[in-house]
Amino acid sequence: MSALNFEIVHRLPGTLARAGVLTLPHGVIETPVFMPVGTKATVKAMEPFELEDLGAQIILGNAYHLYMRPGAELVAEFGGLHKFSGWHRPFLTDSGGFQVFSLGFGMEHGVGKIAKMFPGEGGGEQLAPPRLKTAPKLCKVDEDGVSFRSHIDGSLHRFTPAISIQIQEQLGADVILAFDECTSPLHDHAYTKAALARTHRWAKQSLDAKTRGDQALFGIVQGGAYEDLRLASARYIDSLGFDGYAIGGSLGESKADMHHILEWVCPLLAEGKPRHLLGIGEPEDLFACIERGVDMFDCVAPTRIARHGSLYTQDGKVSIRNLRFRHDQGPIDADCGCTTCKRYTRGYLRHLFLADELLFHRLSSIHNLYFIVNLVKQIRQSLIDETFFEFKAAFMTRFNAKALV
Amino acid sequence: MSALNFEIVHRLPGTLARAGVLTLPHGVIETPVFMPVGTKATVKAMEPFELEDLGAQIILGNAYHLYMRPGAELVAEFGGLHKFSGWHRPFLTDSGGFQVFSLGFGMEHGVGKIAKMFPGEGGGEQLAPPRLKTAPKLCKVDEDGVSFRSHIDGSLHRFTPAISIQIQEQLGADVILAFDECTSPLHDHAYTKAALARTHRWAKQSLDAKTRGDQALFGIVQGGAYEDLRLASARYIDSLGFDGYAIGGSLGESKADMHHILEWVCPLLAEGKPRHLLGIGEPEDLFACIERGVDMFDCVAPTRIARHGSLYTQDGKVSIRNLRFRHDQGPIDADCGCTTCKRYTRGYLRHLFLADELLFHRLSSIHNLYFIVNLVKQIRQSLIDETFFEFKAAFMTRFNAKALV
Repeated sequence: MSALNFEIVHRLPGTLARAGVLTLPHGVIETPVFMPVGTKATVKAMEPFELEDLGAQIILGNAYHLYMRPGAELVAEFGGLHKFSGWHRPFLTDSGGFQVFSLGFGMEHGVGKIAKMFPGEGGGEQLAPPRLKTAPKLCKVDEDGVSFRSHIDGSLHRFTPAISIQIQEQLGADVILAFDECTSPLHDHAYTKAALARTHRWAKQSLDAKTRGDQALFGIVQGGAYEDLRLASARYIDSLGFDGYAIGGSLGESKADMHHILEWVCPLLAEGKPRHLLGIGEPEDLFACIERGVDMFDCVAPTRIARHGSLYTQDGKVSIRNLRFRHDQGPIDADCGCTTCKRYTRGYLRHLFLADELLFHRLSSIHNLYFIVNLVKQIRQSLIDETFFEFKAAFMTRFNAKALV
Repeated sequence: MSALNFEIVHRLPGTLARAGVLTLPHGVIETPVFMPVGTKATVKAMEPFELEDLGAQIILGNAYHLYMRPGAELVAEFGGLHKFSGWHRPFLTDSGGFQVFSLGFGMEHGVGKIAKMFPGEGGGEQLAPPRLKTAPKLCKVDEDGVSFRSHIDGSLHRFTPAISIQIQEQLGADVILAFDECTSPLHDHAYTKAALARTHRWAKQSLDAKTRGDQALFGIVQGGAYEDLRLASARYIDSLGFDGYAIGGSLGESKADMHHILEWVCPLLAEGKPRHLLGIGEPEDLFACIERGVDMFDCVAPTRIARHGSLYTQDGKVSIRNLRFRHDQGPIDADCGCTTCKRYTRGYLRHLFLADELLFHRLSSIHNLYFIVNLVKQIRQSLIDETFFEFKAAFMTRFNAKALV
């Protein structure tokens, strides 16, 4: 008896895209879906009712951060993440693998999920060409798990599949993830292959460690940008009988690489189970990845860039700092239905941003999340209406045209 | 024809305390009243609807800060503070005198309105004994006004009564204040007397400079902690025919000094006009000052200490950082009706605070403002019911008893 029920309500002919309904212990979700990231049991600057109001159906919490602070036992004592945070719709937690990677190897080498970018660090800034420097110091992988130092106080900790699952059971999300080793775009084939063997062993161990019946467990497909490894991983993870899938780790050196990876992986995953692409969520990615079979997304970009003054509009991303908004009495986006656009002008928001006012973080986060969450809802409707390609073309033309101005 | 109507609905026998109704262009206010401080056209971390929900009737904006950023002309272009900020109930702006003082002299000498404290800097921490150091560098007072450097970029600026009134007319608050020289507890009688002569001349000039008919103008009583000067100031300011009064400047070296100053000043002010005590607002001050005839309060303390984790309860102030709250699944204050207390536990709030989460600022500000705003409402009701002294004794006993624990 699974904690999850996934029903595909419509498939877009000629693609792997589908609209679905995912039933979880804390609610029903329409997929494709974008989930805001609430790393430490809070989507930064926002109250749960605002997330509900803007249409969020599920949010993601990070097991690593919650284990560090306030501690998974404490969250369990409060009745789990839902009661602790006041967010009563579904939660998903990751397994901690990516944070161990990103706070260890990734942070030391300045790379993210795609080699030349840091999608988690502002949504795609170009960085210097990646190169392998010294061995990572903050985390050490062995065959049974990962030992690492806390990014808060340097204390020594260890995650194994059993520990990660135990933590996630204490946190009590609706969907939890298998523990994996998240490799970097800088890792070669040999290393990535060895890591994948660990990830596969750990996937099995994660399944074995699971004790709660009211949580869905997703397996994670790894293998970097290597076709043979991704194919092998998709086949193996699919064979284990997880409730759904997450696609993690290095997605290559470009968006094209990411698309290829999805084209290798998605056709091999059981069609009737949901697929989550971890950590991706720029508007152009959403269209491309849904088309290739992805059902679920999470990404910190919308809220992180919001706090830095970068706001989504139908006409592209704009920086609220721009002088042209000083006298602007219109909303961020005339077509937007969010409370920020209903209540505040660009001129006032620019003032709040330049004055370093706390309120800006919240108002900008509401807007960007509304934009992305509802973009995915519109994409879903376009799948059902079979107008996906027209919608995509119209959106991307307008979004990119103005973005170049 | 005044922009203000003030009606006293009940007087508490044997005191100067009164419950009133103050009608302003943007709404009707019940006095005594506490107004949250929205320095830069935003009460930090909060949306206007939350201020309305917690019962705020009027908020204060600072002319100095708004003149610096975004500029008073810009606010005027947006239709004034109400339209610019989205707060549609009454606004009061100060004249800039106190900021010129506090960012110039006050900042250099580490003193506030009461010599040994900095009520604006956390609500009363003890500082080293004050002493006069060098001449202030950030501001220079002459007979016609004050020249000062911007705290943002060091650029040179000048305020005179006419300029302050012009700025406040551009900002468009319901109540504006005369421009004054705000002296420090460190100033001697001779300096304070000379400054008072300027303040009185500037009061007349402020009245003369006023052009808008839809704003009420309050005169400011100064004179430091010197009885002869406070008496002279109260008499003179009262003679000029302002719509109401503010009591500003140095309030001595202790709460007892502050009480004496009110006992000198309030009986000399026209009974039928409202009296605002600038920058004061700790719970014990509210009782003592209302009893002595004050109708209006503003203070940054409730929101500032909130952001630093200090929360009001009926049982005294508590620091949310305290380990005893780690496992606490109750609200901040079981008797509180604010949305923070309805929705969140002490344990979760402690987590947000320790994790430096933006949401904490907002949830803690909502709570502390609800506490203070509604405490003043309860005090008002106790004036009408003539239960003020019983209410004060019960509140202070409970508040102080636990505060000592």
